[in-house]
Amino acid sequence: MAQINFLFGIHNHQPVGNFEGVFRDAFGRCYAPLVECLRRHPGVRCAMHHSGPLIEWIEANEPGYLDTLGELVGRGQIEIMSGGFYEPILTVIPYEDALGQIGMMQEWVKRRFGVTPRGLWCPERIWEPQLASLLNTAGIDYTVIDESHFAYAGLTAAQMFGYYVTEDNGAVVRVFPIDKTLRYTIPFKLPEDTIEYLKKVADESGTKAVTLGDDGEKFGIWPGTHKWVYEDGYLDKLFGALEANADWIKMPTFSEYIDAVPAAGRVYLPTGSYEEMMEWALPADAQLGYQRFVARLKADGLYDENKPYVRGGFWRNFFAKYSESNLMHKKMLRVSRKVSDMGGGFDDAQRELYRGQCNCAYWHGLFGGLYLNSLRHANYAHLINAQKLAEVQDAWGRELVLFEVDDYDADGENEVLVENPVINAYISPTYGGALLELDYRPKSFNLTNVLTRRREAYHSKIVEGLEPQQETADQPQSAHDLVKVKESGLHEHLVYDWYDRRLFLDHFFGPEVTLDAFARADYDEAGDFVGRPYTRERAEKIGDTVTVVLSREAGVRVGDGQVPLRIEKRYQFGRDGLFSLTYTITNLAERRVELWFGSEANVGLLAGYADDRRYVVPGHVLDDARLASQGTLEGVGEVRLEDDWNGIRLTFQLEPAAGFWRFPVETVSQSEDGFERNYQSSALLFHWPLSIPPSASQKVVITTTASHTGE
Amino acid sequence: MAQINFLFGIHNHQPVGNFEGVFRDAFGRCYAPLVECLRRHPGVRCAMHHSGPLIEWIEANEPGYLDTLGELVGRGQIEIMSGGFYEPILTVIPYEDALGQIGMMQEWVKRRFGVTPRGLWCPERIWEPQLASLLNTAGIDYTVIDESHFAYAGLTAAQMFGYYVTEDNGAVVRVFPIDKTLRYTIPFKLPEDTIEYLKKVADESGTKAVTLGDDGEKFGIWPGTHKWVYEDGYLDKLFGALEANADWIKMPTFSEYIDAVPAAGRVYLPTGSYEEMMEWALPADAQLGYQRFVARLKADGLYDENKPYVRGGFWRNFFAKYSESNLMHKKMLRVSRKVSDMGGGFDDAQRELYRGQCNCAYWHGLFGGLYLNSLRHANYAHLINAQKLAEVQDAWGRELVLFEVDDYDADGENEVLVENPVINAYISPTYGGALLELDYRPKSFNLTNVLTRRREAYHSKIVEGLEPQQETADQPQSAHDLVKVKESGLHEHLVYDWYDRRLFLDHFFGPEVTLDAFARADYDEAGDFVGRPYTRERAEKIGDTVTVVLSREAGVRVGDGQVPLRIEKRYQFGRDGLFSLTYTITNLAERRVELWFGSEANVGLLAGYADDRRYVVPGHVLDDARLASQGTLEGVGEVRLEDDWNGIRLTFQLEPAAGFWRFPVETVSQSEDGFERNYQSSALLFHWPLSIPPSASQKVVITTTASHTGE
Repeated sequence: MAQINFLFGIHNHQPVGNFEGVFRDAFGRCYAPLVECLRRHPGVRCAMHHSGPLIEWIEANEPGYLDTLGELVGRGQIEIMSGGFYEPILTVIPYEDALGQIGMMQEWVKRRFGVTPRGLWCPERIWEPQLASLLNTAGIDYTVIDESHFAYAGLTAAQMFGYYVTEDNGAVVRVFPIDKTLRYTIPFKLPEDTIEYLKKVADESGTKAVTLGDDGEKFGIWPGTHKWVYEDGYLDKLFGALEANADWIKMPTFSEYIDAVPAAGRVYLPTGSYEEMMEWALPADAQLGYQRFVARLKADGLYDENKPYVRGGFWRNFFAKYSESNLMHKKMLRVSRKVSDMGGGFDDAQRELYRGQCNCAYWHGLFGGLYLNSLRHANYAHLINAQKLAEVQDAWGRELVLFEVDDYDADGENEVLVENPVINAYISPTYGGALLELDYRPKSFNLTNVLTRRREAYHSKIVEGLEPQQETADQPQSAHDLVKVKESGLHEHLVYDWYDRRLFLDHFFGPEVTLDAFARADYDEAGDFVGRPYTRERAEKIGDTVTVVLSREAGVRVGDGQVPLRIEKRYQFGRDGLFSLTYTITNLAERRVELWFGSEANVGLLAGYADDRRYVVPGHVLDDARLASQGTLEGVGEVRLEDDWNGIRLTFQLEPAAGFWRFPVETVSQSEDGFERNYQSSALLFHWPLSIPPSASQKVVITTTASHTGE
Repeated sequence: MAQINFLFGIHNHQPVGNFEGVFRDAFGRCYAPLVECLRRHPGVRCAMHHSGPLIEWIEANEPGYLDTLGELVGRGQIEIMSGGFYEPILTVIPYEDALGQIGMMQEWVKRRFGVTPRGLWCPERIWEPQLASLLNTAGIDYTVIDESHFAYAGLTAAQMFGYYVTEDNGAVVRVFPIDKTLRYTIPFKLPEDTIEYLKKVADESGTKAVTLGDDGEKFGIWPGTHKWVYEDGYLDKLFGALEANADWIKMPTFSEYIDAVPAAGRVYLPTGSYEEMMEWALPADAQLGYQRFVARLKADGLYDENKPYVRGGFWRNFFAKYSESNLMHKKMLRVSRKVSDMGGGFDDAQRELYRGQCNCAYWHGLFGGLYLNSLRHANYAHLINAQKLAEVQDAWGRELVLFEVDDYDADGENEVLVENPVINAYISPTYGGALLELDYRPKSFNLTNVLTRRREAYHSKIVEGLEPQQETADQPQSAHDLVKVKESGLHEHLVYDWYDRRLFLDHFFGPEVTLDAFARADYDEAGDFVGRPYTRERAEKIGDTVTVVLSREAGVRVGDGQVPLRIEKRYQFGRDGLFSLTYTITNLAERRVELWFGSEANVGLLAGYADDRRYVVPGHVLDDARLASQGTLEGVGEVRLEDDWNGIRLTFQLEPAAGFWRFPVETVSQSEDGFERNYQSSALLFHWPLSIPPSASQKVVITTTASHTGE
C-alpha cells in the first residue's frame, strides 16, 4: 500500500512590543483552540514552536495552555521545536547572540517540558549557508526550510521529500523542504484536497516524507480563518481525516523520522527565504519588474517549470531599502558589543538585548512590521534598556559621558556618538550633519523613531475610489492574495520623501514654498545641504562637555543665480538632556544675499492623534495641538512636544524667534488586513529669513531639552 | 565634457599542481607581454592580482618580471591587489585559514613591493554575505564582484557604477560591480568598441566610474587570444586609445577612487558568482533546464530586462554534485583542524594546508578543474604533507596509529578513520562499507584519487562525427561560446556510473554480465550492497591494531528469485602499509545458493597510458599492462599496480585465487580548448564463484599492501 510520512510543524509567534489586546485576541482565537483541537486528535502528531515574546505572555496570562501542551508533549504527540528565543533573524545578529538566543530557548523548553529540542524553527526561514555550523554548534539536529530554497540549489520537484544534509565547515544540520502545495492547501482548501495531495505523493517505500512547516496564525488569526478553521469545523475535519487514513498517512515526529530514515542526499542552500519574502526584499522598482516578469511567465505557461531559476532579492537588503531598519540594526550591534564587553553575568542586559533583536520591526512585507511605530519603539526601548544595563559607570556609580567617533551605521564613514546619563545623540556628518538618533534614556525612548515616506511596489494598487470592504467569501483567501483598504482616500496620502527624515536637516527655500508643498515633499529645494556630506571640523570632549563642529560649503539658488554659502553646525552637549546646535551661516558671495533658511526636526512620539500627546508653543494658542496637526506660526521662541503617556517632554528653544511649521509624517503600507495609514512622526520646521552682507555670517541657535513632563 | 573613470583590474592565476610547461607557456604568451604592454603605456593604470602558485613559479623562474612589476608599482601605474594566497574559495575554508591566506598575501606584497594592498581579488567572485566581515577583519578595503550580484540585490543597470558599501555584523567592505559589457568587449571586440562603450556611459559628474575586473589569461592564453592581443596589436591599440582619450577617460586606481568619491549606496549581495559559474554549480538536469529557459527568454526578447530575476545555482553545491569534491573538501577541513590543533609555529604545515585549498580542483565549469587528476593529486599531496607535519608523534618521535569514529565527510553518519605511519584509510559504513580514501603517506599520495563518470549538461553537444578543428576566426571568440573536441569518437566514451567509484564495493552478478557491460555500467546488479549502508558492528584499536567490522543483510537476485545474504566486512590494520579485508558471506536462505561475487577496487595512479605505470600479475603475461588497459584473467592470486614515476606499488593478494577484471575509468569533460577524454583511474574487479549451503558462510580475503616500488 502506498504510504506517506506527513511531517507537520507549527510556528506560533507574536512580536516583541505587540499590543496586549493582540496577544489576547490571538490566544483566544488561535493558539488555544489549535492546541485543544490537537488534544482531541491524538493521532495528529506535530512539532510546535512558540517564540519567546508569546511564551512570556502565555506564562504571565494563560499558564494553563502550557500544561495542556506539556500533556501532549508527554504523550508523544507534540515535539517542541527550538528557535532563537525572541525570534531574531539568526544571520544578522552577532554569532554569540544567536547561540545565546537558541540556548535560552533550549533551556526554557527543558525547564518547562523536561525535553531538549532537536529541531529549530528558523525565523522567516531566512537561510544563509553559514547557519549550518551555527545550528550544529547550538546542538540543533534539524530545521525546516521552504522547498524553493532547494529548487534554487537545483533539486527537482521529485526530490523535495524526506530531508537533506547540509553543512558548513564540516558541521552538519538536516533540513526538511517545506512543501509549498501543503502551505497553500492548509487551511485554505478543503480537507479532502490535502488528503488527495498526500495520496498523490504517497509511494510504496514507506520511507517517503512530505513536510509542512508554517505559521500557526493561519489557524485563526489570518483574516477569515477563525470562522473557517474552527466555527465551520475545517480543522477538526482535516485532523479527523488524517486520523482516519492513519493506515497510509503516517505522522511521525521529525526526530523519529530522522532516526529511522537516512538523508535523501546532500544539499547546499543559497541565501533565501520563502518566495514572497525574497520579493519584498527587492527595491520597489525591482519588485514591480519581478512581478511583471512572473506574471508574464505565468501567462506564457513558463512559470511552473522554470521557477527554480526565478527569484527575488536578499533579506539583508531591507537594511538598504529602509535606512531606519539599518539604523535599528546598527544600534542593536552597538548595544550587543557593549553587553558582550561586560562579559558574563549580565543576564538582564542580555535579555533586553535579545528582545531588541526580535525580527518583526526590522523588515516589511505583507505584515506591517517596520511600518508599525510601536514595534520599532519596543525594540528600541529594549535596546536602550540593555545599553543602560551594560554601560560602565564611574567609581561613584555615576554613568559616564561617552564620546566616540566611529562608523556607527556601517556606511564606511565615521559618525560622532555622544552618550550621557540622559541622552544618546548620534550625529552623522555625512548625512547633512543631522542626528541619526536621539534617545531619552530615563524612559529608554528613541525620540527620532521616524519612518521616511517611500514608494512601495504595492502602492500602484491604491487608487482613487478604493473603499473598505466586508469579508464575503465563505472560505478564507490566503492573505497573500487580498487587496483591501482600511480607510478611503488613501491614495491622497501617497507622498514620497526625497530625503531621510532626520533631526536637524538644513533647508533653503525660494519664496514660493508653502507648508503644504513642503509637507508633500513637492517643492524645489534651493540649497544643497539636506543629506549632503558635512566635514567634521572638530569633535572633542573636555570635562563632561562634548563639542562637535561640522561644516559644509555649497551653493544656494537665489533668484536665477547661485550663491556660495558655508554652514557651520556646532553641537554642544553636557551631562544632561540639554544640548545646543548653533548654526553659523556665512555668505561667501561678494554681494549681500537674502535667504530663507530652515532647520527641520523629525520627532516620533508614537501617537499623532492622541490627546495625551501635544504641541505647546508658549505665547500661542493652537487650534489643534495634536502631534498629527499641520500648521504655521510666526515669532516662536519655544516649541514643546509633551507626551503624558510616556512622561516625556522635548523642548526646542529658538534664538532668534523663528517661524514654525509642523505637519505629520504618515505612511501608507500594507498589512494582512489591508492597506492602512500610519502616523510615523511629526516634522517640525524652524525657519528664519536671513539677510547677510558679503563675507559676513549670521547665527541661529536651537537648544533642545529632553526631560520628564512636569519638570 | 562627459567623463568616465575606468577602473581596471587584472587577475593572473595558475592552479597549484599545474604542469611546469603550462606555467612556462602562460608566462611567455601572456603574463610577460601583458606587463610589457602596460610598461609601454604609462597612462593605463590598473590593479593587478597574482595568485600564490603563480607567484612561486615566477619567483623561482622569472624573477625579473617582479622587478618590472615593482617599477610600475613604484611609478604609481599599478596597484597590487591582495587575495587568499593560494586562491582558495574564501567561503568554504575555515575562517582562520581564510585570514591566514590573506595575511600571507599581504605580507608577500609588502615584502616584495613595500606596499600593503587595500583591495582583494575574490576567487571566482564567489560571494557569501559573511565575507564582508572576514575581509574587513583581514584589513581589506575593497573587492570587485560581478554586476550580476548587484542585479540580484535589485540594483538597476543605471546603478552599476562606482562602488557600494556592504557589511556583515557592522564590519564594512566596499564592492565594485564588474561591468559585464567590458568583460565581453575586452579583448573580444575591437578597441574602438570599448572606447565607444565608455563614451556611452560617461557623464558630466566627473565621479562616475565603471569597473572591469577579469582574468589576465584572456590576454594571451585563452584560445586564439595570443595572436589577436599581441601579434595583431589589439592590446597596444586599446591601451593607446585609452591614453589618447585621457582627457575624458580617467584611470585612477581603485584606492584613489575610493578616497576621492563616496559610495554610491549600500547593498547586500546574496550568495552568487558570475552567471556562468552559477549555471555550472547546478546538477546536469537543472543546468539543461536553466539553459532552455534562458534560450526561451532570449528568443522571446525577455532576457535582458529580466535577468536580475534569473539565476542558476550555488557554488557549494559542487560538493553535492561531485562526491569527490566533497571528499577533498572534507579532507582539507580535517587537515586544517589538525594544523590548527598544533597551535602557532607550524608554518610549513600551514603553507601545505593552504596549497591544498587552491580552488581549481574543487569544481568544474568551462575549465577542467576537478576533472584533471593532476590538480586533484596536487591538492591531496599538499594536504597529506600538511597532515604529516601536523600530526602528533609519540615520545620517541614515532608517528602514532590514530583511530577515530567521526562524521568525516559531513553526511550526518560516522565514518571510521585509521591513520598510521604508512597509510590513511577512511572507511564509510554507510557507503557500502567501502574506503573513501586510501593514502600512501610516504609519498603523500591518495591512491583513491578517482573520478566517477557522470552525465554533464554539455554532453548533449558531443555527438557522432564531431571532429577536432583548426582555429579559423581572425578574432578570438570568448571561450564560453566554443564547441570543440580534442579527439574524434568522444561520444563513445560517454558512460555514466550508477554509483561512486570507491575502494571495495561489493557486487553480485548474474551469469550474463560481461567485463564490457560492467565497464560501461550497463548491466543489472543482482545484489543490493554497492553504496548501501552497512552497520558498524565493531571498531576498535588494540595496541597498534585497528579492527573494523561492518555488516549488511540484503537480498541477491538469483535466477527469478531473491536470496537473503549477509556480508560481513572485517578490515584489519597494523602500523604499516598492509591491511586485510576479510569478507564473510553468509547464506541466510534455506537452500544452497550459487553466487558470483565481486569486490571492486578503484585506484588512481594519474597516468593510464604511461609505460612507467603498469599492472603486474604474477604468473600471467599481460598483452597490455598499462593502467588504461582492459582485460580479464582467471586464477589470480596477486595483482600489483606499479608506478615507477611516483615510486609506489600497490599490491592486492587474493585468497582464494580470483578472477580479475580490469578497465580504465575515463571521463569526457569540457575545457577551454574543447571537449577531452581524461583517464581518471583503473577499476579492478576481483571475483569469485560462491556456492554456499543454507546458513553457511564462505570467506574471501583481500590483503592490500601499499609500498615503495622495489620493496
